[in-house]
This record gives sequence, C-alpha cells and structure tokens, in this order.
Amino acid sequence: MMSSSRNASQACASCKYQRKKCDPHCPLAPFFPHHRRKDFMNVHKVFGVRNVLKLTKNLGHKEKSEAMKTMIYQADVRVKDPVGGCCRVISELQHRIKNLEAEYRFLLEQLAVCRAQKQAKAPVHKQQQF
Amino acid sequence: MMSSSRNASQACASCKYQRKKCDPHCPLAPFFPHHRRKDFMNVHKVFGVRNVLKLTKNLGHKEKSEAMKTMIYQADVRVKDPVGGCCRVISELQHRIKNLEAEYRFLLEQLAVCRAQKQAKAPVHKQQQF
Repeated sequence: MMSSSRNASQACASCKYQRKKCDPHCPLAPFFPHHRRKDFMNVHKVFGVRNVLKLTKNLGHKEKSEAMKTMIYQADVRVKDPVGGCCRVISELQHRIKNLEAEYRFLLEQLAVCRAQKQAKAPVHKQQQF
Repeated sequence: MMSSSRNASQACASCKYQRKKCDPHCPLAPFFPHHRRKDFMNVHKVFGVRNVLKLTKNLGHKEKSEAMKTMIYQADVRVKDPVGGCCRVISELQHRIKNLEAEYRFLLEQLAVCRAQKQAKAPVHKQQQF
C-alpha cells in the first residue's frame, strides 16, 4: 500500500531531487516527505545525503528521527548564517547566561543590603526582666 | 617558499587524506594543517570536503576562517553526539536560561518583600510642628 501512495508525484523530497523511484524502504522518506523540499535541500547542501545516511545508519528509529530533526535545524541555521551557524546561537545564549548571572549576583547583593538595613531599623525591644 | 614547506610529509590533513599534492593554493591547508587530522576527519565525516568548500567559497578570508572554526566545532560535537549535535548544547543552554530567569524572578520578589518589611519596621517620625 505504501508503494502505491509513493507514486512519481509523491516521491520523497530526496528521491525527487535525485530523480529516482521512492520505494517503501527509502530511508529518507519518513523525514523528507515531498512537501519538505526546503528542509531536504538545506540538509543536502550542508551535510549531503550520503553523510546524513552514514551518520544515522546505526541509530534506532527514535534516535534517527531526533538526529534528523537536529540536522534539519542545524542545516537551516547554517544556510541562513553560513559563517556562524549554530555556534552563533550558542554564543548568544552563553552571552545571555553571563548577563543573567551578573544581574542575579547584583540582586543577591541588594537583598543582603536590604536585610541588613531591615535588621538595623527594627525597633530594639527592652530586655525582658524576670 | 610555501610550496617547499608543504612537502609530501607536511601536506595538509585534507590533501594527505585524499592522497594528493598539497599546493600553495590549497583552500583547506590554512584551516587543516597536517597536525589537525582529527578536526579534518570530523568535518569530512559530518559535512564532507565538497560541501565545506561550497559553503565557504563566497566568503572573505576572515569570514571563511570563522566559518571553518564553527564547522570544526559543530562537527566535533556531532561526532561525539550523533543524535543531538549542537542542538543539545542549545537546548541545555535554553534550559539553564529558563532556570536562571525563574531564580531571578524569585529573588526580585524576595527583595520587594524585604523592602516592604523594612518600610513597615522603620520608626515613625513625629510630625514636625511649625
């Protein structure tokens, strides 16, 4: 049934690009259906079909699916940013963390000051006499 | 002079792998000298030499150098983590940011409470009489 649903016009994006028949065992069809042409083109441009197949051949179905998703994301970022790719995303996130940590430390200091002032301003209770 | 320094034993890691002469115009030699074999093998495994050359051919020298660095990093991460690659690094950083933001908001609330308490505990000054 699957083979009939993958006729010439519905060959996966990879087989369509390579002008070959998309058979039911096509390893890329589950990840690049015919309407995901852009995803496929990005992945092919950045990693290449052969590398993608080699990199994922020993993975189980779930892991392979996750690996494909991450490669689609990475390829998309690299095509949009050929110099930085995902490294620029990582660098920006690290920068954000550095800023957040500095703001956190500043707030911690302010809280310590506030608590010290609160303690100092609290009315001194008379010593209880027994 | 450069050509003589790139003799057979000092061909860049890419040319050495491809068993070809490394000439002074080798586009990969500046990024993969002979002692960076592992970097080259990772990049070749993940992106492939042809894709790397295609992806960087229109970049200026500085940008090309940066692009190579980011691809070397990405390839290294993908070889160590074939499923997640750089996406796992990004995901972990995003998780760290989410936690830091929550801790920051908590501290902000504590500071607001402390300031309100300090205000309430401050001794009430007698109204000045004129």
